[in-house]
Amino acid sequence: MNTTVTPPGVIEADAVIVGAGPVGLFQVFELGLLEIKAHVIDSLNAVGGQCVELYPDKPIYDIPAVPSCTGQELTDNLLKQIEPFEPTFHLGQEVTKVERRGDGRFDVETTLGTQFITKTIFIAAGVGSFQPRTLKVEGIEQFEGAQLFYKVKDPALFDGKNLVICGGGDSALDWALNFVGKAESVVLLHRRDEFRAAPASVAKMKALCDEYEMQLLIGTATGYETDDAGKLNHLKVTAADGVTRRVPLDMLLVFYGLSPKLGPIAEWGLDIERRQLKVQNTEKFETNVPGIFAVGDINTYPGKKKLILSGFHEAALAAFGAAPYIFPDKKIHMQYTTTSPKLHKVLGVETPVFD
Amino acid sequence: MNTTVTPPGVIEADAVIVGAGPVGLFQVFELGLLEIKAHVIDSLNAVGGQCVELYPDKPIYDIPAVPSCTGQELTDNLLKQIEPFEPTFHLGQEVTKVERRGDGRFDVETTLGTQFITKTIFIAAGVGSFQPRTLKVEGIEQFEGAQLFYKVKDPALFDGKNLVICGGGDSALDWALNFVGKAESVVLLHRRDEFRAAPASVAKMKALCDEYEMQLLIGTATGYETDDAGKLNHLKVTAADGVTRRVPLDMLLVFYGLSPKLGPIAEWGLDIERRQLKVQNTEKFETNVPGIFAVGDINTYPGKKKLILSGFHEAALAAFGAAPYIFPDKKIHMQYTTTSPKLHKVLGVETPVFD
Repeated sequence: MNTTVTPPGVIEADAVIVGAGPVGLFQVFELGLLEIKAHVIDSLNAVGGQCVELYPDKPIYDIPAVPSCTGQELTDNLLKQIEPFEPTFHLGQEVTKVERRGDGRFDVETTLGTQFITKTIFIAAGVGSFQPRTLKVEGIEQFEGAQLFYKVKDPALFDGKNLVICGGGDSALDWALNFVGKAESVVLLHRRDEFRAAPASVAKMKALCDEYEMQLLIGTATGYETDDAGKLNHLKVTAADGVTRRVPLDMLLVFYGLSPKLGPIAEWGLDIERRQLKVQNTEKFETNVPGIFAVGDINTYPGKKKLILSGFHEAALAAFGAAPYIFPDKKIHMQYTTTSPKLHKVLGVETPVFD
Repeated sequence: MNTTVTPPGVIEADAVIVGAGPVGLFQVFELGLLEIKAHVIDSLNAVGGQCVELYPDKPIYDIPAVPSCTGQELTDNLLKQIEPFEPTFHLGQEVTKVERRGDGRFDVETTLGTQFITKTIFIAAGVGSFQPRTLKVEGIEQFEGAQLFYKVKDPALFDGKNLVICGGGDSALDWALNFVGKAESVVLLHRRDEFRAAPASVAKMKALCDEYEMQLLIGTATGYETDDAGKLNHLKVTAADGVTRRVPLDMLLVFYGLSPKLGPIAEWGLDIERRQLKVQNTEKFETNVPGIFAVGDINTYPGKKKLILSGFHEAALAAFGAAPYIFPDKKIHMQYTTTSPKLHKVLGVETPVFD
């Protein structure tokens, strides 16, 4: 019998899933069929992982029995599928700490201070957590949070300022358009005269440039200058013609997209091979730490293919592999969703009549 | 260089898939992405395998990103998905012969005499081929094809005859209703007064019984009698009350449904464990015979779960495993359907614009 008193505010869980991409979501489903409730943590503010972050509106063709769907549709369908299991999502936070407890369970903690005590952990973190791609100018990192920003938390901070905004995607364009008329000046800096942002935004930006409401610079940031107080006051921009110009600024906003990092996962004592988590076998997809499973793109084993489909299969087997940690005395039988009245009950659907 | 002359009528193939259930169909897709064209053989006359044979209209809930679909819908979606790859189906025939040739390929032959020479074989035969469940009355098998039938090929054969039709499903009821008015007499024999046939058919059958157009007997066939010429002329039927009655008849039709049999697969030299095909590893799902792969419910390996999802994953890895037999000199790269222009070309879709 477990007589440990759980500290207030700490969530006691059977299963914590790290990553709310398609495989993390389907892990909820497979655990749900075994009557295991899951908490899902993701560093992004929305569910869907890479699929939604990188290709929300691009079609995927190789999900079995789904001839074509976008990343967003795939996510929406999975959310619908896991609805009966009522998972709890903890978004916009990254798991920092995973530690084995004396009672065999794990202490888990996130960047927002959410704390769990859990029997099992499923790492479905894909290529890792998404972090903004940084500006590669030596020494510029010292201004981060004061004059250099990779996201906008409080737009009012930029009112009346001279802004340089770097990037050619939707975030860069949308913020540039947003700050025109509010900031003192807006310079959009992009490495070439082609943009991956929505064509309508690009057209609007060019129109504003023609009206001298903002300015477009084609070039690359290669250095900076500071004033006597050490404040950033000029960005050095080198154009295609090799000429470097000095652009005055108060604030620098960089939107180069997100890039995945393995991050704190590397420090949990798990076997890692080329930035992937090694699993012990293809029966359970358990890592070298009993009770911690790795599914989807983040794991590796002989023959591994980074297919969403493979992650789905791994999630199914990992759920069965984990069940004994959660129900040590229960014998787990494979049942079919088409025929099992018990599974129909957990899914909240009616059992069809069979002879 | 292969200078063998292929005999006329023999189909030269890169891949032959045995089984047109969901996993066999998805095998077509995964091979198609690698530009390998497939021939698909099934003993049933329709594609879909168990899904369509056993639960065409029953919902399945555990196909990832498909919250609910029937067996028929799953099959239809898979058929749509493999359309770009134009597989050739060879239905209503069972593979009888698989033999290694001198040139390393395989000779394959079916019950309808279709012949292939193929580089690879994918066995996706599920629980085996479906055979009619037989009537368990000792000695009755001698009448098969003359007076005992498990399917109706030529309905005219039964006109003007005294028929006993066994079973309680749609086939039994539909044929009973069909023969009323054409046969001399129709007796429907079922073990209990509940039917898995469509309620409308059951109601119609009962109405016809009330009008003395046909007769319903509740009981079990336990024996038979013959005339002096050795012809079957009576069926002995034992009712729930233990009383055995003699029912006169000319023809006996039995519709007890289909039951799967491993069949000729057992004789192809493959490692078999408890009626399943053992695969060498979970990298390629190749059997002990190089070039022959086993995917879906028919295979076994440590941790195997008989999930459609697992069969899908196995089909993906088997396709990669088989590619070197078909393209010995080509290096196969994993590509993504979302981003690969090459895959877009084979799928016949447009490549979206990426930055």
